Amino acid sequence: MTRAAAAPEPEPLCVFGTGDFGRSLGQRLQQTAYRVVYGSRRPHSCGPLPQGAQVMSHVAAAQSASVVFVCIHRENYDFLETFAPQLKGKVLVDVSNNPKKNIYPEANAEYLQRLVPGAHVVKAFNTLSAWALQNGPSDASRQVYLCGNSSEAKQAVAQVATKLGLTVLDRGSLAAARELEDFPLELFPEWRLPFRLAISLVAFLFFYLLIRDIIYEYVVNGKDISFRIMVSLANKVFPIASLIMLSLCYLPGIIAAFLQLYRGTKYKRFPDWLDRWMLCRKQLGLIALGFAVLHVLYTLIIPIRYVAGAQIIKENQTTVFDTTVAWRGDSFYSTGILGFGLYLLLGITSLPSVSNALSWREFSFVQSKLGYLTLFLCTLHTYLYGRDKFLFPSTYKWYTPPGYMLSLVVPSVVIVLKLLILLPCVDSRLTRIRRGWERTDQEEDSKESLLT
Amino acid sequence: MTRAAAAPEPEPLCVFGTGDFGRSLGQRLQQTAYRVVYGSRRPHSCGPLPQGAQVMSHVAAAQSASVVFVCIHRENYDFLETFAPQLKGKVLVDVSNNPKKNIYPEANAEYLQRLVPGAHVVKAFNTLSAWALQNGPSDASRQVYLCGNSSEAKQAVAQVATKLGLTVLDRGSLAAARELEDFPLELFPEWRLPFRLAISLVAFLFFYLLIRDIIYEYVVNGKDISFRIMVSLANKVFPIASLIMLSLCYLPGIIAAFLQLYRGTKYKRFPDWLDRWMLCRKQLGLIALGFAVLHVLYTLIIPIRYVAGAQIIKENQTTVFDTTVAWRGDSFYSTGILGFGLYLLLGITSLPSVSNALSWREFSFVQSKLGYLTLFLCTLHTYLYGRDKFLFPSTYKWYTPPGYMLSLVVPSVVIVLKLLILLPCVDSRLTRIRRGWERTDQEEDSKESLLT
Amino acid sequence: MTRAAAAPEPEPLCVFGTGDFGRSLGQRLQQTAYRVVYGSRRPHSCGPLPQGAQVMSHVAAAQSASVVFVCIHRENYDFLETFAPQLKGKVLVDVSNNPKKNIYPEANAEYLQRLVPGAHVVKAFNTLSAWALQNGPSDASRQVYLCGNSSEAKQAVAQVATKLGLTVLDRGSLAAARELEDFPLELFPEWRLPFRLAISLVAFLFFYLLIRDIIYEYVVNGKDISFRIMVSLANKVFPIASLIMLSLCYLPGIIAAFLQLYRGTKYKRFPDWLDRWMLCRKQLGLIALGFAVLHVLYTLIIPIRYVAGAQIIKENQTTVFDTTVAWRGDSFYSTGILGFGLYLLLGITSLPSVSNALSWREFSFVQSKLGYLTLFLCTLHTYLYGRDKFLFPSTYKWYTPPGYMLSLVVPSVVIVLKLLILLPCVDSRLTRIRRGWERTDQEEDSKESLLT
Repeated sequence: MTRAAAAPEPEPLCVFGTGDFGRSLGQRLQQTAYRVVYGSRRPHSCGPLPQGAQVMSHVAAAQSASVVFVCIHRENYDFLETFAPQLKGKVLVDVSNNPKKNIYPEANAEYLQRLVPGAHVVKAFNTLSAWALQNGPSDASRQVYLCGNSSEAKQAVAQVATKLGLTVLDRGSLAAARELEDFPLELFPEWRLPFRLAISLVAFLFFYLLIRDIIYEYVVNGKDISFRIMVSLANKVFPIASLIMLSLCYLPGIIAAFLQLYRGTKYKRFPDWLDRWMLCRKQLGLIALGFAVLHVLYTLIIPIRYVAGAQIIKENQTTVFDTTVAWRGDSFYSTGILGFGLYLLLGITSLPSVSNALSWREFSFVQSKLGYLTLFLCTLHTYLYGRDKFLFPSTYKWYTPPGYMLSLVVPSVVIVLKLLILLPCVDSRLTRIRRGWERTDQEEDSKESLLT
Repeated sequence: MTRAAAAPEPEPLCVFGTGDFGRSLGQRLQQTAYRVVYGSRRPHSCGPLPQGAQVMSHVAAAQSASVVFVCIHRENYDFLETFAPQLKGKVLVDVSNNPKKNIYPEANAEYLQRLVPGAHVVKAFNTLSAWALQNGPSDASRQVYLCGNSSEAKQAVAQVATKLGLTVLDRGSLAAARELEDFPLELFPEWRLPFRLAISLVAFLFFYLLIRDIIYEYVVNGKDISFRIMVSLANKVFPIASLIMLSLCYLPGIIAAFLQLYRGTKYKRFPDWLDRWMLCRKQLGLIALGFAVLHVLYTLIIPIRYVAGAQIIKENQTTVFDTTVAWRGDSFYSTGILGFGLYLLLGITSLPSVSNALSWREFSFVQSKLGYLTLFLCTLHTYLYGRDKFLFPSTYKWYTPPGYMLSLVVPSVVIVLKLLILLPCVDSRLTRIRRGWERTDQEEDSKESLLT
Repeated sequence: MTRAAAAPEPEPLCVFGTGDFGRSLGQRLQQTAYRVVYGSRRPHSCGPLPQGAQVMSHVAAAQSASVVFVCIHRENYDFLETFAPQLKGKVLVDVSNNPKKNIYPEANAEYLQRLVPGAHVVKAFNTLSAWALQNGPSDASRQVYLCGNSSEAKQAVAQVATKLGLTVLDRGSLAAARELEDFPLELFPEWRLPFRLAISLVAFLFFYLLIRDIIYEYVVNGKDISFRIMVSLANKVFPIASLIMLSLCYLPGIIAAFLQLYRGTKYKRFPDWLDRWMLCRKQLGLIALGFAVLHVLYTLIIPIRYVAGAQIIKENQTTVFDTTVAWRGDSFYSTGILGFGLYLLLGITSLPSVSNALSWREFSFVQSKLGYLTLFLCTLHTYLYGRDKFLFPSTYKWYTPPGYMLSLVVPSVVIVLKLLILLPCVDSRLTRIRRGWERTDQEEDSKESLLT
């Protein structure tokens, strides 16, 4: 902007193409104090353009600017070849995307570079939408990935992006263009692993319980209770999957802690599988929360089914009232409710706008301290459900343990290992390692490691 | 900032008025490396100002700067008339708002322009709050609308705004000032249409069901069951309204698709009513979700009413247990629960911070694929509720169909039409149209349309 | 960025330390068109640095730049003392944090200033994480607090921060450094008061109801119903605490209104306790909402306990059906459900991303109008619960009123006072005071006060 004040006629930016994206980009550039020149095949009939923008032929437009935004579909790049001499030395910004992955042998930006070898092609802005450009980008859409072979060209594009209020993330040479062009085509990449796990888990539990609960009953007692699939079985599958997945959020952190303790340093990289596991903890937790919500809804619907008459309350039940049983039952409900309440809280704090508002210390308090409390309450809830059932042989139909037992294995292990880590001697050692001041063997190196 | 480095004493900005907004604006300007001069009636007793800011008389302050922010209530603009000669050629930024709409015959900015005809008045910053200025604006409050007759003046203000980290949206000439001044007074403008629809729908359903359920019973059987208004009736009104409104979210998209198919192009504008309908789909969906939440709560409360004794469970019921009935009943509950779970998911992804974090492809996957699945599950849930009731004449009290039947009309139509669109031949044609490469008749024009 | 164009070799920024934070900071600086020079003990073996950055010895690096970012742990500051002459006149930016509060007698930045007295130390960037720097900061992490004794030095750092897209908040002289260093160590500072209140309230209610419900029963009738602690008692404590805390959100606003009416001006500061109370209304409301969610879950679980057989439905109950009772009961449920629905809506609108998307007028509409409606519905719900119980002496066990009566005191007072304020004569007076145009006694001053 100083530029505008110092030199009243700054060099304009050139935009090729007058479609949605070209128009929106030009408009934003103009509102950020740039002058914009459009290059068009038909400068006199190219539809509405941002007020104040000039329209010329492609050649004339390119000659007046050193940076050219190519807002054209890849299918029409070929005509640029004819201007190759005029585009020599220019920075060509490729903003294009494709409708699908792998439909062309090379990335659009590389193709453009091949057509106009004398230009400096920079891939950028392709993750931004015309809509975001028009209305001002919001947090998530503020990141602009760019790549290119000329660092001066990238610098020039980065300057424009920064001035538009965007955050530039440099991804290296033009060879990264394909990766950048695939970004907008990705569908929840970070959810893929947790989803697969969730689906496998649910499928396994479904068939396991189908055999134990429905088929066993049919084979042994000849009773068809297949209708239970819809509610009773679902209400076993979801809570078990939820508890297991919740504990899987905390397991990698514990493995990492033990690795660090064993290695005596935090500077060695974790194995790849652990890194990937750590990165999808949030997703694991949110799917677990989704299952917990379904479990709550399925549970709360149970009495309606009785009232509505699908089943009848056995009226001749003559239960002797027992305070211990009542305590156990009510504790079962209460731990479930409190655990679910905390679960919801964890879910809310992982909403982007909420977690952004937390300091790192607050976030780690919620996700770790409250997270473990949630895991503990939910595990306790399941233990109270099981009570002394594990003592009776009739529980083990066809020699298989009931579903709730399966769900207790991982959480119990996680809780025990976490308690181990919380022992003062282990904890203090781990804290020192994580502060970075500890290396076990080579004492001589210790000074440098402090300069972090 | 280069300016500050190059010329250590840059031209200051002037702020008239030392109230909340003036103070906050000056403070933010100073922290963004501007020098600020305040103009005040009483330069020596005007309360606490940002550290480092100068305070002078209005005339002196205006003379030292070319941009003057007028942070004064409109009622006090008249004194500016006396400085009109000194303000000639200056950029006057009108940041004012009014407590109500239409209390003055002309916009504040136009009034200011009339008082100081020689100045270049720019309306801007009026949608920002003093609080947002002090603490740094967040996403939504980052947009600054401006308008004015001089494009140089607008450029100068846009530069300041950009430097403050704001996104400028130019709304044209000063004639748009009234529109800008009305922005902060609007109360949920984009919710108005959906709310009216929701209220009409709820009112209609309420009276329809009141007549069918309560008044019919009173007239025909002489029984007063008016108390059912509070829970039973509410629990019919809300789910019916919810399902209808959910399907109304998807209907405009389908109408648009058929319009595009019929016209063979995406470049013709939709009729106005369809545009407005498309723009309030999110709001329709969220109100529908609200009704669904109420439906869930009302449903879950049913057995408590029995247990608590408001009604008594008919004990002599001798239901013969029937697996088919159980299947149907449990499927009814299960589709309801799963539909509601997905419904919640749709609601969560429409939170601004979540939808901002999604790429366009992810957002459209959730809102369209999962959205239709939700609609399908909820419609199935309603069909399972109805079962074979439609066969019995007693269902049609006073020749009116029961409420649930009403609720099934629009969703069923939407689902059938959607299935039509999903047919491969229709789908591929629509995809081509939406990619922009298709025009039916005039083949000669097709090349230009590709350059979008 | 103009700088880069005008002077191709701008002065670089220097970063001491090649740890996580130093690397991330350097990378972001480079991507924002700065040149970065690292100072390191071992320039040839300091691990991976951002591409294009130079690495030198500390002295050489410091000499090439006027701003030095000291990204080193405080424990290693002492070596800087040896370079003190070379650092004279430089701007030293202290970005450090400590693992705990009060482990050193002076702030890190003050210690640095003492070691290098000739430099201009500025405390800044310590609330940013390396992660936020790498990925581009989001809304909440965009604020950079800084303090220092030299305003030129602060200006220079503020320029860098602004260029990185951050919002600078100046906190004054270096004496504020300790406060800034404590920021990242704070754990929910604004939640502390509401949490303490919530815990005290819950503890008081728990013991009060324990005595009235459980111990009374044991002492008077000799029956052990201690198991009720888990569900029945919890389901009394949470709703009572919720309603009281909800009404405490609205009480300070009412007190403030009466204070303004009494004083006849809005320009006098409120007493400190009222200010603090006003600032934690949102937190009070969210905790209240949390309790309300638990109340709903505990309530919905009640019939399951009966169905599951923990208690048996008394079968010999011969309730005569009474329409008035049914009306009362169903109204009780319905007000509860609608109140909870609105409660949820209030909670959702206080999510940062949602409240940011609302204009001030919309936010105040939701939080005040809908807030009072929520309070009214929840209070009515509680009155309907109590019904005519207050007439019977048996209600007052050991002469204490039942819990629900306690919960009605504050909400009733708040609602009555609010209705008073809504009286046209009071309302219009208050509106005038809040617009700022009213002062009661000194009429001569009125003009100046309008210039806000």
